[in-house]
This record gives sequence, structure tokens and C-alpha cells, in this order.
Amino acid sequence: MTTIIPDGFTVRRIDSRDFDGAKVALAGLTTVGEISQEDFNSILGYWDSVLLPNGKQAYNTFVITAKETEKVAAIGTVFVEKKIIHNGGLVGHIEDIAVNSDFRGQKLGKVLINYLSSIGKQLGCYKIILDCDEKNVGFYEKCDYNKAGIEMQIRYQ
Amino acid sequence: MTTIIPDGFTVRRIDSRDFDGAKVALAGLTTVGEISQEDFNSILGYWDSVLLPNGKQAYNTFVITAKETEKVAAIGTVFVEKKIIHNGGLVGHIEDIAVNSDFRGQKLGKVLINYLSSIGKQLGCYKIILDCDEKNVGFYEKCDYNKAGIEMQIRYQ
Ligand SMILES: CC(C)(COP(=O)(O)OP(=O)(O)OC[C@H]1O[C@@H](n2cnc3c(N)ncnc32)[C@H](O)[C@@H]1OP(=O)(O)O)[C@@H](O)C(=O)NCCC(=O)NCCS
Ligand SMILES: CC(C)(COP(=O)(O)OP(=O)(O)OC[C@H]1O[C@@H](n2cnc3c(N)ncnc32)[C@H](O)[C@@H]1OP(=O)(O)O)[C@@H](O)C(=O)NCCC(=O)NCCS
Repeated sequence: MTTIIPDGFTVRRIDSRDFDGAKVALAGLTTVGEISQEDFNSILGYWDSVLLPNGKQAYNTFVITAKETEKVAAIGTVFVEKKIIHNGGLVGHIEDIAVNSDFRGQKLGKVLINYLSSIGKQLGCYKIILDCDEKNVGFYEKCDYNKAGIEMQIRYQ
Repeated sequence: MTTIIPDGFTVRRIDSRDFDGAKVALAGLTTVGEISQEDFNSILGYWDSVLLPNGKQAYNTFVITAKETEKVAAIGTVFVEKKIIHNGGLVGHIEDIAVNSDFRGQKLGKVLINYLSSIGKQLGCYKIILDCDEKNVGFYEKCDYNKAGIEMQIRYQ
């Protein structure tokens, strides 16, 4: 599957230029907190260092940026887990999807999910999973995801 | 929180001796497939190699074994993800929980979840999440987990 990126936008792996734009987009999802540019760079460096058995990156965070302004319109991650089950299979976890509020309703969310899913598929994942609010189920169904179970949590902070 | 391990059982990190017992327990959860002892050892070796920014292990798979027979009574994983959100926070993912059918109903499932949760907490996770079938929600509620959302999936194999 080739993902068609809308005119005027580019998709690429996150890098240190995305410090402000990533924070703004993610603030539409949850608390980001007081991370500095240095903290941000060290998270990206850590992510780069985590490899799968095949040598590819386990953390794959991508941004969709507006070509003219380089603004981060959307951000999301697929990170890949090695299991014993399913013949030592790989599962992709889609995490921390956010479309900057100025850019919603332009299909960028769907493009991003399709893009991350194709990355996970290329890496060899037998499935990709994600957790979402009940109110976003319809969005993920438009991205070819189906309900699979219940997310449970315990919080410490 | 200290987890009390029932008499006659031990909890420890998975190792190469658990090849047969892990496969039997996990077969009660899903397809395991045709992995060899060598494949199994290489998965464990890979898991050991994946470190968090603080140098601790990201993959933490533990077994509860019967002291006399060394049989694997229960198995489960908490693996830890580094995020940008929540001040560059850590989230624990509980995965692949299975109690061998000969050992169910003896509180070993609950002991294992409490143990893995305390590992995740010690590693600094601000929350731990897991996905389960609707029919197991009551079990996880007894382990102090609450419903948080919907799991969605796309399958490639
Ligand atoms: C949810 C979110 C990612 C959607 O991104 P978006 O770019 O606005 O959505 P898209 O334009 O790509 O929508 C694709 C399709 O899904 C539909 N859709 C979007 N949000 C929907 C929702 N909540 N419920 C049902 N359908 C939805 C759109 O109408 C569109 O349908 P169409 O293809 O038939 O026209 C975005 O609104 C967002 O970032 N929200 C805040 C953060 C958040 O909730 N993140 C997800 C956490 S689980
Ligand atoms: C689900 C499973 C892990 C539970 O393990 P277990 O060791 O049998 O359960 P425990 O004895 O620790 O149960 C702890 C408590 O939860 C309750 N409980 C167990 N399963 C339950 C369920 N499905 N629904 C509601 N409550 C349940 C027990 O009655 C017990 O309650 P109590 O403390 O009031 O006596 C085990 O049955 C199993 O491995 N099943 C197959 C694989 C599976 O489904 N894994 C989970 C995937 S999401």
C-alpha cells in the first residue's frame, strides 16, 4: 500500500527541528510538561538507539509538516515489540497520535495512521494495535482498524 | 507494595530453562508456533539487549514456577516505552499474561500482575496499561486496574 500525502504536506521521521511543533500538536492530546530542547534531543537519540532483532528501529515517530512553513501538522509513533508468541512475532503499537487543531478535518490523521501502519507492516508486524477513547473509534474504523478488546490501566502519577 | 508469593512458588525473570513451560502456558492464550530452543534463547537475548535510558531492561518477562517441579505456572511481561509526553515519561505495557490451566484459580494470575506492576512502578512508569478481552475485565479490576479505553487492531497475518 502506498500512502498518498496531500498536496502541500510532507511526511518524515521526527528530528530535532520539531521540538516546538511536536509539543504544540501533542498538547492537543495530553500533558506534555516542561521538556527542554536538550531533553527532546535526548529522547530522539534514545529512540534511535533501540533496534529490533533485524537491525531496524523499534521506535518510529513521524511528523506530517506543511511544506511552506515547516509547521508540524500531525505526529504519531509506531513502536515495535518482539514476542515469543506467533512464532517470535512482532507487534506494532501505535501511540501518541495528534493532529494540530489548525489542521484537523483534512484527512491528515488518516494519512498518518495509514503511513504508520505501512511502516509496521514493512517491519514484519503480524498486527498493529492501539488504544483510543470510545469517541475516536469511528476515526480508526475509517483507517481500517477494528475493535479488539478493552484497555485497562493503573496510574502512579 | 511487596507482592506476597504463595507457598510452594517462586517468581523470577524468564530464562532458557523455561522453553517448554513458557510454550505450554502461552498456548492457553494464543498461537505460539514452531519456535525452537535456539529461537527462544535468541528472543531472550534480544530482550536482554534492549535498555531504557536509565540502563534498566525495557523487556521484563517473569515466570512463577512451582518450587518442587520447576514447572512454569504463570508467565507475563511488562515492557516499558519512552515517550515525549508526560515530561518524557515512561509507560509500562503488560503483555502476554497466561496462567497454565493446571494452576488457575490459585491467585497466581493476580500475584503476577501485582508483581509486574510493581516492577513497572519501580522503573518509573507513570502508568501501566494492558489490553484484554471483555471477559477478563473483572480479573484485572481485582488487580487494581480500571477501564481506560478501547483496543483497536489491524491484522496482517
Ligand atoms: C482524532 C484525530 C487524530 C483525527 O484526525 P483528523 O486529521 O482530524 O481526521 P481525518 O480528517 O483524517 O479524518 C478521517 C476520517 O475520519 C472521520 N473522523 C475524524 N474524527 C472522527 C471521530 N472522532 N469519529 C468518527 N469519525 C471521525 C473524518 O470525518 C474522516 O471521514 P471521511 O474520510 O469519511 O471524510 C484528531 O482529531 C486529533 O488529533 N484529536 C485530538 C487528539 C486525539 O484524540 N488523538 C487520538 C487519541 S486516541
Ligand atoms: C485470566 C487469568 C490470567 C486469571 O488467572 P488466575 O490465576 O486463574 O486468576 P486468580 O486466581 O489470580 O484470580 C484473582 C481474582 O480474580 C478473579 N477472576 C479470575 N478470572 C476472572 C475473570 N475472568 N473475571 C472476573 N474475575 C476473575 C478470581 O475469582 C479472583 O478473585 P478473588 O481474589 O476475589 O478470589 C487466567 O485464567 C488465564 O491465564 N486465562 C487464559 C489466558 C488469558 O485469558 N490471559 C489474559 C489475556 S487478556
